Amino acid sequence: MRGEVTLNRNQLNFSGGPGALPDRVLIQVQEAIANVPEVGLSVLGISHRSDWFAAVVEEVSQNIRRLLDLPENYHVLLLQGGATQQFSMVPMTLLRGKTAPAEYLHTGYWSGKAIPEAVKVGALRTVWDGSGNGFTRLPTDDELAFSPAAPYLHYASNETVEGLQFHRVLGREDVPRVCDMSSDFLSRPCEAERFSLIYAHAQKNIGPAGVTVVLVRDALLAKTRAGTQGGALGNLPGFLDYGSHIAAKSNFNTPPVFAIYVVLLVTRWLLQDMGGLAAMAAKNQAKADLLYQVIDRSDGFYRGRAMARDRSSMNAVFTLPNEALTQQFLAEAMATGMSGLDGHRAVGGLRASLYNGLSLAAVEYLAGFMHDFRRRHASLKPGKR
Amino acid sequence: MRGEVTLNRNQLNFSGGPGALPDRVLIQVQEAIANVPEVGLSVLGISHRSDWFAAVVEEVSQNIRRLLDLPENYHVLLLQGGATQQFSMVPMTLLRGKTAPAEYLHTGYWSGKAIPEAVKVGALRTVWDGSGNGFTRLPTDDELAFSPAAPYLHYASNETVEGLQFHRVLGREDVPRVCDMSSDFLSRPCEAERFSLIYAHAQKNIGPAGVTVVLVRDALLAKTRAGTQGGALGNLPGFLDYGSHIAAKSNFNTPPVFAIYVVLLVTRWLLQDMGGLAAMAAKNQAKADLLYQVIDRSDGFYRGRAMARDRSSMNAVFTLPNEALTQQFLAEAMATGMSGLDGHRAVGGLRASLYNGLSLAAVEYLAGFMHDFRRRHASLKPGKR
Repeated sequence: MRGEVTLNRNQLNFSGGPGALPDRVLIQVQEAIANVPEVGLSVLGISHRSDWFAAVVEEVSQNIRRLLDLPENYHVLLLQGGATQQFSMVPMTLLRGKTAPAEYLHTGYWSGKAIPEAVKVGALRTVWDGSGNGFTRLPTDDELAFSPAAPYLHYASNETVEGLQFHRVLGREDVPRVCDMSSDFLSRPCEAERFSLIYAHAQKNIGPAGVTVVLVRDALLAKTRAGTQGGALGNLPGFLDYGSHIAAKSNFNTPPVFAIYVVLLVTRWLLQDMGGLAAMAAKNQAKADLLYQVIDRSDGFYRGRAMARDRSSMNAVFTLPNEALTQQFLAEAMATGMSGLDGHRAVGGLRASLYNGLSLAAVEYLAGFMHDFRRRHASLKPGKR
Repeated sequence: MRGEVTLNRNQLNFSGGPGALPDRVLIQVQEAIANVPEVGLSVLGISHRSDWFAAVVEEVSQNIRRLLDLPENYHVLLLQGGATQQFSMVPMTLLRGKTAPAEYLHTGYWSGKAIPEAVKVGALRTVWDGSGNGFTRLPTDDELAFSPAAPYLHYASNETVEGLQFHRVLGREDVPRVCDMSSDFLSRPCEAERFSLIYAHAQKNIGPAGVTVVLVRDALLAKTRAGTQGGALGNLPGFLDYGSHIAAKSNFNTPPVFAIYVVLLVTRWLLQDMGGLAAMAAKNQAKADLLYQVIDRSDGFYRGRAMARDRSSMNAVFTLPNEALTQQFLAEAMATGMSGLDGHRAVGGLRASLYNGLSLAAVEYLAGFMHDFRRRHASLKPGKR
């Protein structure tokens, strides 16, 4: 199987993030470093106040609206600071001055990072905590009880470290849903209109590190401002106020022009080359199915970390029988051109991240390698001598 | 004079920022989009947790230390959020819980942006306000009286919009100096060890928009933490706490890998190709001298905005006799390959920004154009018929 398609090392990058970008996009980025065709200047030297850049921001916004069927009553913002900044901006905006606790799900490493930042701002209730089961599964609906009084519900749609992903929308229709979609944004349709606020940094599926997309329903902010006591948002620094960024069309302070331009190229690629999110999701699912099949049919040589029901189509997290084999796997994979397969430092083991930019051919290449690796090493087991 | 050197449009980019980068750097960046030589992957797909990236951060830090002769008791941080984020982080760190007001100079557009963000946090005294003279000059020492009780003094070393630059260090030795050097950082030696905190976004002299350098003296933070009442910093979001970024070696949350890599290439260029900051400063001064000479010897056809004493070596701001000529100047300049010469929207007129990446040859080209433009248009004056 290996060798049929010639893949370069960028195409075999299984990193958990920053993730691989499509070759077609990399080629366009390379051109833009010398010269953005319609401007005649390097993308690194074009003013963020230029008409060209205003058009870039507008097209990114329109492309995201088209990809997600996002209604007009949502703002599309392009900010800095990653999901980490959103861990604070969300409660600073929605929790200050409130008495009822916000509700958070703790389903893994990343949703767990959001919680202490919210605690600094106000009252919080952890609706479900997966730490007791080592974050190997997600809650069922029977295990979840949401309060209608909560200012909002916060959860992460995908946990990159543990390889867990929600395949449904959680929560009540009458409580604003806030979702960290950093690691599966624009990898599949997401029923965006059921959320009040979605945030996602770019560096998994849609661009390089340094820019964060926020989709926020207009009524959420209007309601929040009206609802705060004595102007609870009055002291908020301008750059932490969604309103500043909305008013300035994501140009409140100098935006990361380059990163936003790459997001533009990726959204064009999603629309034009991939044919939209339903097609992208089908491709992503095929990649994940192939990899999980290799794991499931390995007689326990490869073991998936997550319960099958809650497996992520973005991050397949698995282990080998021992650490020596794990290191050998990584070394051999690297020697054949594949990189980024080591698990997150918090859980160890192996992880194959299958973001938008990674092709089915790359996963076939990895699957072939895994078959081969297993055949060679499973046959060395004592019982098989 | 024009035509002797062949300059491309990137080399004739006089934009106020993001500014032109050296061709040598652009070529290396272009290569890195496909493949960072020592890694074999696109710079856009390399993990921020890789050994390679840790080495990049370390080398940037060491290069900045070498360029500025920065002592070991300073931390070098690479953050997101631009100067705007620093407008808030500085007072959140140094002003919370203090009774004596921080002292700020209001010398133009950008120092004026810092003040309202500090006012949200605590007491502030404006030591000098140049708005009365339309920000056409900076204060002399006689006009400045600083309090020894101030938690810190804040000023901007260069005002890009008005073309004003301090050519000396302000303030008392016993009060921490905090300086926004966004628009002249690494354009000249700056006596860094006389400041407690220096911040500068990259997009003028050292890289693309999306990364901000902060130099902070260790004792400043130690003192501040010890001095706060009841842990005034306790509620600070992690990403707004300098301590988080110091502890994590600028990897507290995913850093803007690409932008930091470009800063690495520019600092290497400053050390290896330019020969350090004294040489860079001499070159920048020669560029500015040439341009101001054209202005000063134009019989008032070109008029400099700033008092000669306080002129910026980074941004030459000037006007023409009327708006029609201004528009003609911009159109003709554009037609000959030059861009970015329009003044900031707040003041209008013309502005030539002469950041590190812009060569003397480019300024000679502009000077030749200005001579020529004046000859053609001054001769049309009624008295000369």
